[in-house]
Amino acid sequence: MRDTFNHPDWWRFPVGKTNTISDISGVRVGHADIRGEGICTGVTAVLPHDGDLFRQPVPAAVSVLNGFGKSVGLLQLAELGEIETPILLTNTFGVPACTTALIRRAIAANPEIGRSVGTVNSLVLECNDGKVNDIQVLRVTEADADRAIDNASSGFALGAVGAGSGMKTFGYAGGIGSASRRLTLDGGTAYGLGALVLSNFGAQSDLRVFGQLIPPATDGAGDEPDKGSIIILLATDAPLCSRQLERVARRSGAALGRLGSHIGHQSGDIALAFSTAGAHVRDSRDTHSATRICESRMDTFFAAAVEVVEEAILSALWHSVPSRGYDGSMLPCFRDAYSAFAGQLCEGVS
Amino acid sequence: MRDTFNHPDWWRFPVGKTNTISDISGVRVGHADIRGEGICTGVTAVLPHDGDLFRQPVPAAVSVLNGFGKSVGLLQLAELGEIETPILLTNTFGVPACTTALIRRAIAANPEIGRSVGTVNSLVLECNDGKVNDIQVLRVTEADADRAIDNASSGFALGAVGAGSGMKTFGYAGGIGSASRRLTLDGGTAYGLGALVLSNFGAQSDLRVFGQLIPPATDGAGDEPDKGSIIILLATDAPLCSRQLERVARRSGAALGRLGSHIGHQSGDIALAFSTAGAHVRDSRDTHSATRICESRMDTFFAAAVEVVEEAILSALWHSVPSRGYDGSMLPCFRDAYSAFAGQLCEGVS
Amino acid sequence: MRDTFNHPDWWRFPVGKTNTISDISGVRVGHADIRGEGICTGVTAVLPHDGDLFRQPVPAAVSVLNGFGKSVGLLQLAELGEIETPILLTNTFGVPACTTALIRRAIAANPEIGRSVGTVNSLVLECNDGKVNDIQVLRVTEADADRAIDNASSGFALGAVGAGSGMKTFGYAGGIGSASRRLTLDGGTAYGLGALVLSNFGAQSDLRVFGQLIPPATDGAGDEPDKGSIIILLATDAPLCSRQLERVARRSGAALGRLGSHIGHQSGDIALAFSTAGAHVRDSRDTHSATRICESRMDTFFAAAVEVVEEAILSALWHSVPSRGYDGSMLPCFRDAYSAFAGQLCEGVS
Amino acid sequence: MRDTFNHPDWWRFPVGKTNTISDISGVRVGHADIRGEGICTGVTAVLPHDGDLFRQPVPAAVSVLNGFGKSVGLLQLAELGEIETPILLTNTFGVPACTTALIRRAIAANPEIGRSVGTVNSLVLECNDGKVNDIQVLRVTEADADRAIDNASSGFALGAVGAGSGMKTFGYAGGIGSASRRLTLDGGTAYGLGALVLSNFGAQSDLRVFGQLIPPATDGAGDEPDKGSIIILLATDAPLCSRQLERVARRSGAALGRLGSHIGHQSGDIALAFSTAGAHVRDSRDTHSATRICESRMDTFFAAAVEVVEEAILSALWHSVPSRGYDGSMLPCFRDAYSAFAGQLCEGVS
Repeated sequence: MRDTFNHPDWWRFPVGKTNTISDISGVRVGHADIRGEGICTGVTAVLPHDGDLFRQPVPAAVSVLNGFGKSVGLLQLAELGEIETPILLTNTFGVPACTTALIRRAIAANPEIGRSVGTVNSLVLECNDGKVNDIQVLRVTEADADRAIDNASSGFALGAVGAGSGMKTFGYAGGIGSASRRLTLDGGTAYGLGALVLSNFGAQSDLRVFGQLIPPATDGAGDEPDKGSIIILLATDAPLCSRQLERVARRSGAALGRLGSHIGHQSGDIALAFSTAGAHVRDSRDTHSATRICESRMDTFFAAAVEVVEEAILSALWHSVPSRGYDGSMLPCFRDAYSAFAGQLCEGVS
Repeated sequence: MRDTFNHPDWWRFPVGKTNTISDISGVRVGHADIRGEGICTGVTAVLPHDGDLFRQPVPAAVSVLNGFGKSVGLLQLAELGEIETPILLTNTFGVPACTTALIRRAIAANPEIGRSVGTVNSLVLECNDGKVNDIQVLRVTEADADRAIDNASSGFALGAVGAGSGMKTFGYAGGIGSASRRLTLDGGTAYGLGALVLSNFGAQSDLRVFGQLIPPATDGAGDEPDKGSIIILLATDAPLCSRQLERVARRSGAALGRLGSHIGHQSGDIALAFSTAGAHVRDSRDTHSATRICESRMDTFFAAAVEVVEEAILSALWHSVPSRGYDGSMLPCFRDAYSAFAGQLCEGVS
Repeated sequence: MRDTFNHPDWWRFPVGKTNTISDISGVRVGHADIRGEGICTGVTAVLPHDGDLFRQPVPAAVSVLNGFGKSVGLLQLAELGEIETPILLTNTFGVPACTTALIRRAIAANPEIGRSVGTVNSLVLECNDGKVNDIQVLRVTEADADRAIDNASSGFALGAVGAGSGMKTFGYAGGIGSASRRLTLDGGTAYGLGALVLSNFGAQSDLRVFGQLIPPATDGAGDEPDKGSIIILLATDAPLCSRQLERVARRSGAALGRLGSHIGHQSGDIALAFSTAGAHVRDSRDTHSATRICESRMDTFFAAAVEVVEEAILSALWHSVPSRGYDGSMLPCFRDAYSAFAGQLCEGVS
Repeated sequence: MRDTFNHPDWWRFPVGKTNTISDISGVRVGHADIRGEGICTGVTAVLPHDGDLFRQPVPAAVSVLNGFGKSVGLLQLAELGEIETPILLTNTFGVPACTTALIRRAIAANPEIGRSVGTVNSLVLECNDGKVNDIQVLRVTEADADRAIDNASSGFALGAVGAGSGMKTFGYAGGIGSASRRLTLDGGTAYGLGALVLSNFGAQSDLRVFGQLIPPATDGAGDEPDKGSIIILLATDAPLCSRQLERVARRSGAALGRLGSHIGHQSGDIALAFSTAGAHVRDSRDTHSATRICESRMDTFFAAAVEVVEEAILSALWHSVPSRGYDGSMLPCFRDAYSAFAGQLCEGVS
């Protein structure tokens, strides 16, 4: 992707090895596709680390850019500043099945849950893929959620896969995007910052790529008002506390603005950031030791966050494919539109 | 109840006709009990009005006193200031089934949901009844949720019923309580304010009733650290906007304090307030007219909110019955403890 | 300005008559310049209407994009959703003098303040002009604040005037900008939305104008890391309630993103929106009637908000003039840099 | 005080050595009284440690129980989670003078402020003493603020002194109260938690002391509706992060409820908590090490917070003295009312 989209002035930070969220060591992503008559949906799982998250939750925070959404688990995440299950992404009506799957997995691994140690806070985020997928069928199952988790690896597909199967980004088909950046703080310490988006927002005629308005397809395909949502996940191996992670997540609004969004009324635009450094340990100690990033260094994270979220969304666009809407309409491929605009071929693009 | 608990100095506002939340015209409550081997749980539904809430949402707001909870639907409620489904209460692991039931009902009544008009924001709140109920079995079903909604009426049971079946309040068995107050503003306008709680919080040794510490049962039954939660619903027929309703809901913390709670770390203490006046209408107009309470009148609502929430929790206590915990322990009856303390009999109490 | 900056594809909404915040009927702006040896600062007043704001507060809301700021009055504004004094803008250390001026004026007009009717909530917002102005001298006085208020009119200057005297925007001198838009809702109702910014944020090398990176001045003048802030005021004559106004204000983050900002760590980025429709009346009634915009119409306000804030900041840039920093360095004029970039002359620009 | 107020069942935690906030090592408190014709006001300073707070800020957080207040500095405190000046308490219209004093002191100690290192975030909290003090005169000066800071010591007066000079608590004269507790966590680690309140809230007829309603004075003196405010400061030497401190501060609402308050509409009820452990250091490092309290230990802090805030307010009551209101009315002494109620003499009370 970088061959075509590379823009030496626009980007400031070096990209990670794979330019995806799994450049953050330990972070894995898995998809489960669900297909059928009228069905084009799925589940995507993001795992912050290889261990049991209930026993070793990771610091996290959420920033709600617009709350027109049905995600589950954010209340407790905001109170305690941590994630204690895998993160699942799916369609809006798939949330209950995914929630249940996370409950059952947590109980299986920790049989004291719901008894001596309280319950578990499932974390499931969603967008509405009802344009492409017959969402009313409620086809997402617990088995799909399990499959996405079991599929998790450091290499994963982008575009119209997993939870992104039926999503559309600025009117183009496809919903999963990812990118990463390498950061070096003033004192020389180096960290990574990765993003993965489930993107289902934006109107075609609003889209700006590197500041340029991309004309909608001439046949009007996909050019509708913005009614969608976007889930933004940010991962870092820097030891940020939950307050700092919230500040990082909040910067996502600037990235949406750069791409032409006004953060629509019906858009559940939610940014969640977590750190793989300093996983909490639930034990019987009174105190624990932690390393923290000094607040004066936050600007580097903020600038990189805007950039990596912007590219993650472009990545979702870039990997879009032509798709038939549930209503029979066609959602166009972004690369076709962009190539027409740019007078460029798409060859050689990852 | 008022015969025994009446306390002429402590209470300031007159009670409504039934001293429950259904004194607010149109508000109905229904329970579904779920029983079985090791199973003692249920669902409780609260319906703000008789119409289709998706088409006529009501103004609402939430105040999170402590966010250690897994309730669903609060994100969008906070953003838009409205409720668009019945409110369901259940145990923590029953949330997904209840969420799905609300989705299916909304689609059945509004087949365009998920397609032309976006999705629906299910509202399900929960406490963990794992002390009494084998919560790991995930026994709550969509049919139970439907049953609770279908059972809704202006007369309903209190104590260990519906979602309150396996809950405990300050170490005593039972979880559903309710109360209401009649308010007269300075200008003579009169309104009602009702509360219903799903109460599952508090340590026995912390309990204060009318300011008096109630000694725990001498056998220690039920006297454990506070690990629970409380869901507080407030309803009024006064035309409060969502900002005002949030202010009312926020006062619930003072009521918890009066009863001896410190709003525990593991307690998902959530207060939600709604108004039955001025239901929104989703239509094609640009503007609508509304009546609003003048801000200078809010103190009356605040004082009544503390009082009605306090009595709703006392009501849950009062209607508690002896119950066997899932671990075999017995949860005592509050009235036994209170009678012993007060040297009074419980006869003649509603 | 529009002659040069006009961009038919980028902008979507028609501009108001003067393309400033005073296109919203009743909104007036006044400046007080403060100059002297090492002193280049001032005060800017924004008056929502001609009446006594303490007796007739206007609905308002605030969105804190980044809270590294010292503004005064936002706590109560958020609680009550209203503004009860003129809005004053000044430098960071001028806030106390402006606060006092608002207190004295409110008392003079309402002698019962601080006695029978409580106190008054002064609203003063600030940026740090310490680059150009010797801020340590604390030269802003109550008289300056009075002067700004007394100067208020519907015609007012832009750029390096009033509170914007010593500010810099993306490294260019000048801080006051304004713009307006005309909105027509789906049902045909028309409203205005205006913005005024006190802009003191952004790094020169980050600036994007209509999506194009503007190269910093070749001599490096003004090209420093972002340490500044921005205060964004949005005014509308549409009857939005405070919850809706907060949603509008929150969209400002997208506008900052479009211009290249990452919402810096040290930046006090605060957006405040108010409505001139439906001023509250403090009286002895229990209820009042209000007209409200239906929530389904909010997208028009959101899209216009991003656009009008973006242009208000461009307006501050456009009206910048070369200025000498307190440290002796020169801050360049944006129009020089932009003309060099665009190969255009600045003639004929308002 | 403890001789009379001691209540072995009601309190659970042992008190600190002096039962004031200065039991937290390093915390000092100073008062400046301001008296004159019609003038009865002052300033109280609370210093978290002996060093330069701008160079060594302490972790802190704020919980706004009700935002009808004019405090200064909370915006940045919430964003960065730290305090960088002494905390000043005063009357509402004394805030600007105190703000200016903190600015000048910070500049004197750190001449780069406002230039190379940004500005300083003054922290000033207030209540309206307009019942007793002629607040319209704006008599608080920078010199008074300096005097309060210079007077700071670990021994300090309570009641109608400093900022509390003209305040009233539940209708009784006097405003400064303090208390402390000693906490032992489950793992054996011991910490202190102290509170200091500037109390100016509550209606006489609402007051509950240890759960008992205290009858208002028979002559009706001081028995008016609640229009006041309360500022609550909590200090601990436990290494709580700002997120944890916010949770602690939030529990203050339960303490207000125990005493009979409904958290009035016009009451600026603000709780601020800080930790003296782990002062931040502004330096050129990328990371720093920190010790943190494990989240599972928070309940001890929460229970102690409710208790210590409750006693701090009782302390303000206990040290109240008869006082003449600015309008000529008399504010009664709480101990007289309480003694009459309790049939006890006040002798022997600290």
